[in-house]
Amino acid sequence: MTKTHKGPELLGRKAALPASPDEAELDLVANPHPSETYLVRFVAPEFTSLCPVTGQPDFAHIVIDYAPAEWLVESKSLKLYLSSYRNHGAFHEDCTLRIAKDLVAALAPRWLRIGGYWYPRGGIPIDVFWQTGAPPQGLWLPDQGVPSYRGRG
Amino acid sequence: MTKTHKGPELLGRKAALPASPDEAELDLVANPHPSETYLVRFVAPEFTSLCPVTGQPDFAHIVIDYAPAEWLVESKSLKLYLSSYRNHGAFHEDCTLRIAKDLVAALAPRWLRIGGYWYPRGGIPIDVFWQTGAPPQGLWLPDQGVPSYRGRG
Amino acid sequence: MTKTHKGPELLGRKAALPASPDEAELDLVANPHPSETYLVRFVAPEFTSLCPVTGQPDFAHIVIDYAPAEWLVESKSLKLYLSSYRNHGAFHEDCTLRIAKDLVAALAPRWLRIGGYWYPRGGIPIDVFWQTGAPPQGLWLPDQGVPSYRGRG
Amino acid sequence: MTKTHKGPELLGRKAALPASPDEAELDLVANPHPSETYLVRFVAPEFTSLCPVTGQPDFAHIVIDYAPAEWLVESKSLKLYLSSYRNHGAFHEDCTLRIAKDLVAALAPRWLRIGGYWYPRGGIPIDVFWQTGAPPQGLWLPDQGVPSYRGRG
Amino acid sequence: MTKTHKGPELLGRKAALPASPDEAELDLVANPHPSETYLVRFVAPEFTSLCPVTGQPDFAHIVIDYAPAEWLVESKSLKLYLSSYRNHGAFHEDCTLRIAKDLVAALAPRWLRIGGYWYPRGGIPIDVFWQTGAPPQGLWLPDQGVPSYRGRG
Amino acid sequence: MTKTHKGPELLGRKAALPASPDEAELDLVANPHPSETYLVRFVAPEFTSLCPVTGQPDFAHIVIDYAPAEWLVESKSLKLYLSSYRNHGAFHEDCTLRIAKDLVAALAPRWLRIGGYWYPRGGIPIDVFWQTGAPPQGLWLPDQGVPSYRGRG
Amino acid sequence: MTKTHKGPELLGRKAALPASPDEAELDLVANPHPSETYLVRFVAPEFTSLCPVTGQPDFAHIVIDYAPAEWLVESKSLKLYLSSYRNHGAFHEDCTLRIAKDLVAALAPRWLRIGGYWYPRGGIPIDVFWQTGAPPQGLWLPDQGVPSYRGRG
Amino acid sequence: MTKTHKGPELLGRKAALPASPDEAELDLVANPHPSETYLVRFVAPEFTSLCPVTGQPDFAHIVIDYAPAEWLVESKSLKLYLSSYRNHGAFHEDCTLRIAKDLVAALAPRWLRIGGYWYPRGGIPIDVFWQTGAPPQGLWLPDQGVPSYRGRG
Amino acid sequence: MTKTHKGPELLGRKAALPASPDEAELDLVANPHPSETYLVRFVAPEFTSLCPVTGQPDFAHIVIDYAPAEWLVESKSLKLYLSSYRNHGAFHEDCTLRIAKDLVAALAPRWLRIGGYWYPRGGIPIDVFWQTGAPPQGLWLPDQGVPSYRGRG
Amino acid sequence: MTKTHKGPELLGRKAALPASPDEAELDLVANPHPSETYLVRFVAPEFTSLCPVTGQPDFAHIVIDYAPAEWLVESKSLKLYLSSYRNHGAFHEDCTLRIAKDLVAALAPRWLRIGGYWYPRGGIPIDVFWQTGAPPQGLWLPDQGVPSYRGRG
Ligand SMILES: [Ca+2]
Ligand SMILES: [Ca+2]
Ligand SMILES: [Ca+2]
Ligand SMILES: [Ca+2]
Ligand SMILES: [Ca+2]
Ligand SMILES: [Ca+2]
Ligand SMILES: [Ca+2]
Ligand SMILES: [Ca+2]
Ligand SMILES: [Ca+2]
Ligand SMILES: [Ca+2]
Ligand SMILES: [Ca+2]
Ligand SMILES: [Ca+2]
Ligand SMILES: [Ca+2]
Ligand SMILES: [Ca+2]
Ligand SMILES: [Ca+2]
Ligand SMILES: [Ca+2]
Repeated sequence: MTKTHKGPELLGRKAALPASPDEAELDLVANPHPSETYLVRFVAPEFTSLCPVTGQPDFAHIVIDYAPAEWLVESKSLKLYLSSYRNHGAFHEDCTLRIAKDLVAALAPRWLRIGGYWYPRGGIPIDVFWQTGAPPQGLWLPDQGVPSYRGRG
Repeated sequence: MTKTHKGPELLGRKAALPASPDEAELDLVANPHPSETYLVRFVAPEFTSLCPVTGQPDFAHIVIDYAPAEWLVESKSLKLYLSSYRNHGAFHEDCTLRIAKDLVAALAPRWLRIGGYWYPRGGIPIDVFWQTGAPPQGLWLPDQGVPSYRGRG
Repeated sequence: MTKTHKGPELLGRKAALPASPDEAELDLVANPHPSETYLVRFVAPEFTSLCPVTGQPDFAHIVIDYAPAEWLVESKSLKLYLSSYRNHGAFHEDCTLRIAKDLVAALAPRWLRIGGYWYPRGGIPIDVFWQTGAPPQGLWLPDQGVPSYRGRG
Repeated sequence: MTKTHKGPELLGRKAALPASPDEAELDLVANPHPSETYLVRFVAPEFTSLCPVTGQPDFAHIVIDYAPAEWLVESKSLKLYLSSYRNHGAFHEDCTLRIAKDLVAALAPRWLRIGGYWYPRGGIPIDVFWQTGAPPQGLWLPDQGVPSYRGRG
Repeated sequence: MTKTHKGPELLGRKAALPASPDEAELDLVANPHPSETYLVRFVAPEFTSLCPVTGQPDFAHIVIDYAPAEWLVESKSLKLYLSSYRNHGAFHEDCTLRIAKDLVAALAPRWLRIGGYWYPRGGIPIDVFWQTGAPPQGLWLPDQGVPSYRGRG
Repeated sequence: MTKTHKGPELLGRKAALPASPDEAELDLVANPHPSETYLVRFVAPEFTSLCPVTGQPDFAHIVIDYAPAEWLVESKSLKLYLSSYRNHGAFHEDCTLRIAKDLVAALAPRWLRIGGYWYPRGGIPIDVFWQTGAPPQGLWLPDQGVPSYRGRG
Repeated sequence: MTKTHKGPELLGRKAALPASPDEAELDLVANPHPSETYLVRFVAPEFTSLCPVTGQPDFAHIVIDYAPAEWLVESKSLKLYLSSYRNHGAFHEDCTLRIAKDLVAALAPRWLRIGGYWYPRGGIPIDVFWQTGAPPQGLWLPDQGVPSYRGRG
Repeated sequence: MTKTHKGPELLGRKAALPASPDEAELDLVANPHPSETYLVRFVAPEFTSLCPVTGQPDFAHIVIDYAPAEWLVESKSLKLYLSSYRNHGAFHEDCTLRIAKDLVAALAPRWLRIGGYWYPRGGIPIDVFWQTGAPPQGLWLPDQGVPSYRGRG
Repeated sequence: MTKTHKGPELLGRKAALPASPDEAELDLVANPHPSETYLVRFVAPEFTSLCPVTGQPDFAHIVIDYAPAEWLVESKSLKLYLSSYRNHGAFHEDCTLRIAKDLVAALAPRWLRIGGYWYPRGGIPIDVFWQTGAPPQGLWLPDQGVPSYRGRG
Repeated sequence: MTKTHKGPELLGRKAALPASPDEAELDLVANPHPSETYLVRFVAPEFTSLCPVTGQPDFAHIVIDYAPAEWLVESKSLKLYLSSYRNHGAFHEDCTLRIAKDLVAALAPRWLRIGGYWYPRGGIPIDVFWQTGAPPQGLWLPDQGVPSYRGRG
């Protein structure tokens, strides 16, 4: 499981790129409105990992939605965590779900979902959509609105 | 709590920029259709505050939806209220929810929600979505339709 | 209440611009499919009224959806009715709801809703959304799809 | 009622433009998957009829969605059927519903809906939305996604 | 010719809607960079006048580009000037060119152009494009980028 | 050659649909700014004619740009002229150029161009672009901006 | 039924284009998260088959959504499977449903749907939408977002 | 060189898919306006050929612009000609230029250009742009407006 | 004139928000390709200043294009420089040109231009376009592509 | 200088990710139309390198246009070459120009240009545009059409 810190340790510090998701750390910040059911969305259009079979780079546009409970994730540490996949090999489906599960383990949110929008291979892109379960009552949850792949023309 | 006036005091007057949200005032106008459940939407693409850690400016596109009860908020006073965050330091999640809660306190609406669409930091924007609870029966509530962040290309 | 005619009196006639909504008239046409629950949508991007406080012009893009019962509204008379607000002063919220209520009074539809998408003042536009209640069973009701205001960039 | 053929009679034949909807014929093809609940969508952006009062041409973009039962409609015959309105006079609401009802009579589908998106007259377009009733259980029914009329700018 | 003031007289004052373009006044402000050839663009999506034949309202989206010489036009006075067409009757071509010529007379700019994008009548919009002559050397002049009218679909 | 009237004869009158372009008439209005070189653009998204070989309907989106000399074309007569192709058979290239040449003959403009954007046949649309020659000096001529056909996806 | 392999046999091998869907093979990969209900989306904008009547090529943009159970489909084998329709004749409705049913037979997913967005014939495109039934509880299922066909303009 | 017919031989006839570009034929139609310099644009979003190395299908969106001299190309024969690449192997650059050169040889146009917009391979699409030389004087030549490839997000 | 440093002093350091443009500093970096004529574009959608008359906040989207000579501007120092306008009062035209002139003074570039796209006031936005003169020979200069303001609808 | 092969050595072979641009190789293919002046465009939305100061990842969308002389670049080798920047540190301006210059050295094209569209840092993206000189006579050169960065809203 990804290591976490309660309190921002990375923010405002120089931080090297973690060598792998196993070595990345997530900083947690106390949720200032813990009694409210609300949504936080991160859009990470700069994501890359490696194909586990060929070693060639893969790219994805990742959108993460979560309803915090006790903790928020500090965004600089999230950026470093996502960057740690740079030399990590995994299939699209697996990689997308691992990110989500690592965040769930670290944050214990009320609810979380992830959309992984991968760049095409063989002319066919793959999108992966996972959530922890049905969204909580009263949560406002706009759709992620990432355009469908269209080829050319 | 933000001070309110029942009746427009700011409209048609020269009004200085309030120094902080604590000093801003909201003018209330009697709802001309108090027995109707309807929605009023404000879009405020000109919002800026400060990072509480670094003091650097943050920017957001803010959309507020509410179903008025006894009072409407007068829009010039809303503009001044939002402008009062210009020198105020707060995290994205906290700042978004404070705006909403100040309005709830001032207006006692039937229902309210806020979408805070923040500009990217470290290549990753944060959106925050909160509402007072499930929308009232019979309220027509179009989605806010703010485009998803897309990076480049 | 706005005066109505049962049968098109204005269609094909020269008709002067009514001086105010109180003087406008709506022509009714018998619904050719009175047993069906269906939707009629009018989009009126050419709407203007006056600010009741400053007398300055206001502009809006208005979309009206209704499910007719016994009567349809004839569209030329609707156009003249909407034009009658040209020299009428009213706040955005009030003006939008009056249009809807005048149509409800004239048409006694099964259901009606209105979206008023007003041009920005002070950098902040107001949208107003009202409906007569929950839509009837079996009515097909696409969203109005008016783009959200975005500022610049 | 529009005459139908069970089996494609028009496909692959030269076929004259029918003089009116009363003279058009619809060819039916046996549904190859009659036990499945699925949707077929036709988009007909090339539709024209006449105003029943002035005789001037009207234009519409028509979208038809249906869930077939025993029969599919052959698309060349549908094209000819729609072309038969070229010299036919009818109001927008009436014309839209007639097309739908003719198809229902010919196909006896599980379900059908029509969206008629008419070009503006007097600066105001009319859209008409009708369906045979609530959609069947398990039918996947994307929205028609026709852009809202926007005027200029 | 439209009356002008050298120095802002309307800015910060309550100003009534001028009854016609003949009665409107334009305030001039000294160009702070008189030796530079640069472009100022105003976009006025809230323009309305009257049809000189039928008296019915017309609407346009107006874009004005000019390269100032000695004077800038103060934008509040420009807004009031444009509003003064509200009860003025003129054909599209004539109205568009009059606005441009009034500004040329008032400002004596190095160069000016106007695009008038009128809302459709009879299903056909008219756009009018005029400029004082070939643009000055070294002026950077992006196109106005107003979307073409598209009908429906 | 299409017959013309100097002065609007059709405007404000009931006018039947002309049976063919040969029978249509164009009304001319004196150019109020005959010494200026400017552009007038008409967008006609409601155009239909017949295939000369099969008799099936064709549809096009037509955009006409011209720089008037002595005369403007009155837009209601232009609409009727374009409507007169409804029962006229001609190939896309020929039909587009005939419209342009009829207008040139009637108006004797300084310059004129036409873009005919035809709906696809056999999956391939045809666009036709013609102009009377190089545009006059000093004419401001934005591109027509009609989106390219894209198929699906 | 399409033959399947449990384990990727085609990936990383040179593979000839299968002559027909009957001869294509699908490689299955063990689902790394078999206890999760999640969605995998493939977008295939490069699909072509033949008209069973005329032998002329047809083209479609195909989107497949499925919730895996025990197996994932390996994407290179999916690409080859879809390519195998290149010389296969089938009607749009039939072809779309066959693809879906072949995948259901091969993968035994929790749930699957297909959208087939066919290029226009006779000016009218056909879209086909099928799913195995109501989506499973807790599955996050964004809409496919393929733009509606619009003709020209 | 591709064989041509002077006069439409394929139009209105059943025509089999040519086995290769060498076997396809192009029908020529006399240009009805041979003294005019004008542009004809064909958009062919349904193009497919084979990779000469791997035998896998390639897809492209092809746009052809030409200024006819004595002959027009009949569009049904053009469609069949383009379809003849279905089983033809060639690199993107070569295939695009061959189409253009075949048309030049058949039509002897005043001028011709081709844009080939190929679907991505290895995540990188190739576009190819060729023309016979500088466009003729006085030809109006809008850009092809095919959207740039954008990946995801 | 804005103070400059030759070599990055601000990069990697904590840097306070400069109190005004007069107090901001720009860091220069040696151009690694000083013999090449090329373009560097910065897009700054997060710009705010104050109205010199009312003290109310103004917002703009700023795009700067320059062709470097000996020096590049380091982007963190540019961000801080732009942030220094936060409490600075200036008219739109003046503010836009000052930014450009400060950069010209600091960088002595081969060429520079600025587009200032200001948010609407009184319903009318102002854009300001300035360049140092005609662009150098051989410079590739794409347009800035900022969408025109459109109001609503 | 990047090593090249005359003839495709990488195509159809397994090829490891080169460790740096210095170790990458480009395969050349003989231009099949060496006497023609034409354009080849590659769009590479999947590009990443490292910040030379912080070691953090940078991302860009890269578009390369060239007019081949004797050689084409084989696209698989281009992909591998671009991937070789994955662990390479360079500033945006320098990295963009190096790619271009490496290609010029390898291909000796008639002409080449590159657009590097970098993801934002500090809220401000950088675009870099370079070309070898004025484009050759008769080359058709559409603009790259990459959307401008817009922030949010
Ligand atoms: Ca939505
Ligand atoms: Ca496509
Ligand atoms: Ca919606
Ligand atoms: Ca919708
Ligand atoms: Ca939808
Ligand atoms: Ca442009
Ligand atoms: Ca259309
Ligand atoms: Ca343009
Ligand atoms: Ca959606
Ligand atoms: Ca263009
Ligand atoms: Ca992207
Ligand atoms: Ca451009
Ligand atoms: Ca606009
Ligand atoms: Ca508008
Ligand atoms: Ca272009
Ligand atoms: Ca913005």
